[in-house]
Amino acid sequence: MRPSEIRQAQERTAELLATAGIVLTDEERADIEVADFGLGQLETQGLELITYTNTDRYCAKDLVLFPGQTCPEHLHPPIDGQPGKMETFRCRRGRVLLYVEGEPASPIKAKIPAGSEPYYTVFHEIELLPGQQYTILPGVKHWFQGGEEGAIVSEFSSTSRDEFDVFTDSNIVR
Amino acid sequence: MRPSEIRQAQERTAELLATAGIVLTDEERADIEVADFGLGQLETQGLELITYTNTDRYCAKDLVLFPGQTCPEHLHPPIDGQPGKMETFRCRRGRVLLYVEGEPASPIKAKIPAGSEPYYTVFHEIELLPGQQYTILPGVKHWFQGGEEGAIVSEFSSTSRDEFDVFTDSNIVR
Repeated sequence: MRPSEIRQAQERTAELLATAGIVLTDEERADIEVADFGLGQLETQGLELITYTNTDRYCAKDLVLFPGQTCPEHLHPPIDGQPGKMETFRCRRGRVLLYVEGEPASPIKAKIPAGSEPYYTVFHEIELLPGQQYTILPGVKHWFQGGEEGAIVSEFSSTSRDEFDVFTDSNIVR
Repeated sequence: MRPSEIRQAQERTAELLATAGIVLTDEERADIEVADFGLGQLETQGLELITYTNTDRYCAKDLVLFPGQTCPEHLHPPIDGQPGKMETFRCRRGRVLLYVEGEPASPIKAKIPAGSEPYYTVFHEIELLPGQQYTILPGVKHWFQGGEEGAIVSEFSSTSRDEFDVFTDSNIVR
């Protein structure tokens, strides 16, 4: 991504967080992570993140999704004999559509990013509104999409090692 | 504590969280934990908590302190060969004065609860404003007090087992 594109997405993320009353330091604002997963289509497949803490015991982040933006399907594998990352998503603002392995919804409410249909394979639907949360167990494939107004999601989890995430789309570089 | 006292503190806590834009479900609101630590002086020594998740790998809570309210000095000991609880405090609203082991401040900015002076023994001072955070390592004694307008503090941590907490004041019942 071009630096200007990253900066623009960071500013948009900071504004969304500010309207939700989430206070960041200047340093945190400058370090907002903008992930396009190497696909070059941030608006449709991407995610914005702030990592508050990531220790060898626990991790806490806020995730921001722009309207309709999708975090592509992936899972967190076991590492060094430890079970994969376990994560609790708590919706703070907006609406998030989360899909995990299990009984599929038909039709689903989310819109699969055009051209990437083969890389979305799990359709058990969980809709989270502010104050609602869901825990994704280790090794379970999942993907999620922001609603019409986007979404802010707090993620409480075990240690995060994003570089080991396994994406269904092999074109993805994390 | 009398049920009416608990209910009143729960309502006050829910209001403080609402002004900070933190959305709770009705069930969570009804389950806000009001801790007076068995001392019967909630306004001076007490804490209000919402536990969002507490798994065998991680825990996330929001802590609320009324103006000048103090969470008494304690530490988290090792349990079953595991290191004690490690916790990251992130201030969301108001101001929190946190004291841990280390070089003491003199004078300290907080006011030690009258009559409980012997039970406050660590005075390394950390002042947290919104967006600022600090990680308390396992086994380190600590206590904390809300500022003039109280405080909302997000706590990200390893698994929480409050029943094992070791308080300096042996009158305390958690």
